[in-house]
Amino acid sequence: MPGGLKTDLYELKMAASYLRRRMVADATFSLFVRRLPRDRGYLVAAGLEDCLDFLEGFGFESEDLEYLGSIGFGSADLDAFRSLHFTGEVWAVPEGRVVLANEPLLEVTAPIAEAQLVETAMLNFVSYQTTLASKAARCRVAAGGGPVIDFAYRRTHGLEAASSVARVSAMVGFAGTSNVEAARHWGLTASGTMAHSYIEAFEREEDAYASFAADFPDQVTFLVDTYDPVEGIRGVIRLLQRTRHPGRYGVRLDSGDLQALARTARAMLDGAGLQEVSIFASGGLDEYSVEGLVRSGAPIDAYGVGTRMGVAADHPYVDTAYKLVAFDGRPVMKLSAGKTNLPGAKQVFRDEPGRRDVISLRSEKNPGSPLLERVMHQGRRLRPRPALALARARFESDLAWLPESALRIRGPRAPLARVSEELNRLSQRTLERIRRHSQEPSA
Amino acid sequence: MPGGLKTDLYELKMAASYLRRRMVADATFSLFVRRLPRDRGYLVAAGLEDCLDFLEGFGFESEDLEYLGSIGFGSADLDAFRSLHFTGEVWAVPEGRVVLANEPLLEVTAPIAEAQLVETAMLNFVSYQTTLASKAARCRVAAGGGPVIDFAYRRTHGLEAASSVARVSAMVGFAGTSNVEAARHWGLTASGTMAHSYIEAFEREEDAYASFAADFPDQVTFLVDTYDPVEGIRGVIRLLQRTRHPGRYGVRLDSGDLQALARTARAMLDGAGLQEVSIFASGGLDEYSVEGLVRSGAPIDAYGVGTRMGVAADHPYVDTAYKLVAFDGRPVMKLSAGKTNLPGAKQVFRDEPGRRDVISLRSEKNPGSPLLERVMHQGRRLRPRPALALARARFESDLAWLPESALRIRGPRAPLARVSEELNRLSQRTLERIRRHSQEPSA
Repeated sequence: MPGGLKTDLYELKMAASYLRRRMVADATFSLFVRRLPRDRGYLVAAGLEDCLDFLEGFGFESEDLEYLGSIGFGSADLDAFRSLHFTGEVWAVPEGRVVLANEPLLEVTAPIAEAQLVETAMLNFVSYQTTLASKAARCRVAAGGGPVIDFAYRRTHGLEAASSVARVSAMVGFAGTSNVEAARHWGLTASGTMAHSYIEAFEREEDAYASFAADFPDQVTFLVDTYDPVEGIRGVIRLLQRTRHPGRYGVRLDSGDLQALARTARAMLDGAGLQEVSIFASGGLDEYSVEGLVRSGAPIDAYGVGTRMGVAADHPYVDTAYKLVAFDGRPVMKLSAGKTNLPGAKQVFRDEPGRRDVISLRSEKNPGSPLLERVMHQGRRLRPRPALALARARFESDLAWLPESALRIRGPRAPLARVSEELNRLSQRTLERIRRHSQEPSA
Repeated sequence: MPGGLKTDLYELKMAASYLRRRMVADATFSLFVRRLPRDRGYLVAAGLEDCLDFLEGFGFESEDLEYLGSIGFGSADLDAFRSLHFTGEVWAVPEGRVVLANEPLLEVTAPIAEAQLVETAMLNFVSYQTTLASKAARCRVAAGGGPVIDFAYRRTHGLEAASSVARVSAMVGFAGTSNVEAARHWGLTASGTMAHSYIEAFEREEDAYASFAADFPDQVTFLVDTYDPVEGIRGVIRLLQRTRHPGRYGVRLDSGDLQALARTARAMLDGAGLQEVSIFASGGLDEYSVEGLVRSGAPIDAYGVGTRMGVAADHPYVDTAYKLVAFDGRPVMKLSAGKTNLPGAKQVFRDEPGRRDVISLRSEKNPGSPLLERVMHQGRRLRPRPALALARARFESDLAWLPESALRIRGPRAPLARVSEELNRLSQRTLERIRRHSQEPSA
């Protein structure tokens, strides 16, 4: 994916203008989330690896240039684009780490046209994957240790998003995904039961159960709510008592009052001597309903969460920005109402639990360890795409760092990073310089 | 995209089971939306063309089969999958048409394994594209005739979703998109202004304006809110009065109180004799805020809507289902709590404005014209991918059909289709048969 057209039109116009004026000095852009959505006590960094793939492959193909010529770019612009690749440096928070408001997730330093052109893709990958990873993390936390499976494939915003959902949900501790393509691609555990249509394709529900058990004797999760869940469970019990397969069996409840049905199912199964048959719950679940079920003490062994997780239904985006913070050695910032940002290339220092993160200049040294790592230099990755297990380990470790108040499902309190003295001083100086000069009439 | 693994694991397990048992009779699955989200008075059908592409290309490659072998499918299953393609028939509502709750958007009839395997992709394409088209339609309606531009690229759920957003927003009447790749691919109007970073890359804002106007003399929309919007507008006025280019110019307001700023900008521009300079508004807009601005009478000429439209922020999914309605000549339905569906292959008849749609059996003939068309037979499209302009024309026509109460931005009332007598009778008979037989113990 050369990617030259995977951008907003204005990026191309600005890049062309910079190049015509030989503005080739380095610019640093900082990508961060301005404020966390309601009911988010933290975010989980994701999307970086797709960003790095994109940057390594960035360029224009001849058909891209042909199209740009057809919409008004001149031949000098096209010549400049033809040889353009991404030659810059990237510092970033590795995937799986917990991040907070205003902490840079990624900083790009490159000749300004390059850094400008990749804005759209950087924002896209980081915004949606961080949104979805953070939502999935809440589902996993809500389940309190019970396995959670990604069932979102059918209602994500496209197949690409589904693949990302499978990946980032595994990153935050999901036990499997129904998405077969993603399971293969990312090395995840593919997981699946049966649908109502399978039951309906047989004249009698119990014949469907018997057929599926005969075809997959090792493990079956019987879907019991097609017609009447209590009758469905009876059918499963009759089948298992008759056949006495030694497989791993479960029943899936997909509608109705899941708490009450789980208790009924457990009592019926236990009464029939089928204590080892597990109970799986699904059907419109998200972290709020999963937490409710866990708190109720309902005897549910595992959860399938789908649509609401896979589209982050309660807040399907985060308020990301990719802001110029330095150009040609000069720190910059914007002052737009409600949208100011801090100037300069940055680093975030994270200390032990209970201490606030410190957002500082990249050149500073502060207590704790730095969140951003240099991951790309001169347009090349400094390490291959890391295994997902590494991101998952980072998430587990940062999860343990977070205070309980941030982990709450309802009404969490997100920790706030503080800004270092040095960064505050730079911010003040930059502000004064802008106020003095930037809106003076031209000479 | 052969697509064999672009599915949930359970679809493959069910398909394998059907094939082992030589259950090869035709099944009909019906894809519909159970209920409309709050604040949706109608839906706009979208996603069909991607469904048809997928079905035409559906199959398994050898590496797909290798993977399936590695996760437990037997060699007989793999042999059966190897030769499997989609050979069925599809009836569907063409893209751009307005649809209501319970009206089938798409019906697939094929040997049951084929129809089952494609469930995930059919649901995915139709669900997210219908969600996004319906959201975009509301934005366009809210603008009351003013041009609306798609600015969502940076925060959609992936680049694939961004391309769909550009396409479906054009389908419902958007005037352009910032997404260059999508503009090229779908033949849309690419549109773009300038970013704050461009302003900041110059020491003085007015130098940035002068540079951009020199580079793109035909048309510039000046972004005025980087530091102070009133000063920004003054800078634009000075520049335009000095240079007297004959281009088409505008100012863009991207933050703060857009209504007040638009009035200020208009007064300043008019006072300077720049009546022809237009005012463009953006910054976190959606149909609710656009409607507010239009109602306020703010002198805004065009709107850029981004994230909230591109992720359908207030309701990022619709409650779609893909339900088996007939198998081997036998009508079927499920009875799960809150999730029952109507049996049998269907047709929807739409009559003149003011009359309710009628959901009926496909074999019925009712007043009005049918919504579903036969679009695929024996696995092949019955017509090439139609031009987007056709879908747009359908949308315009259906928009005129909708009552005012459905078009309201806040608190709309969605018309409800009624179910034909004949379909109600079939539903009753099917219900009785299921209650009598389906949960009896196996012989």
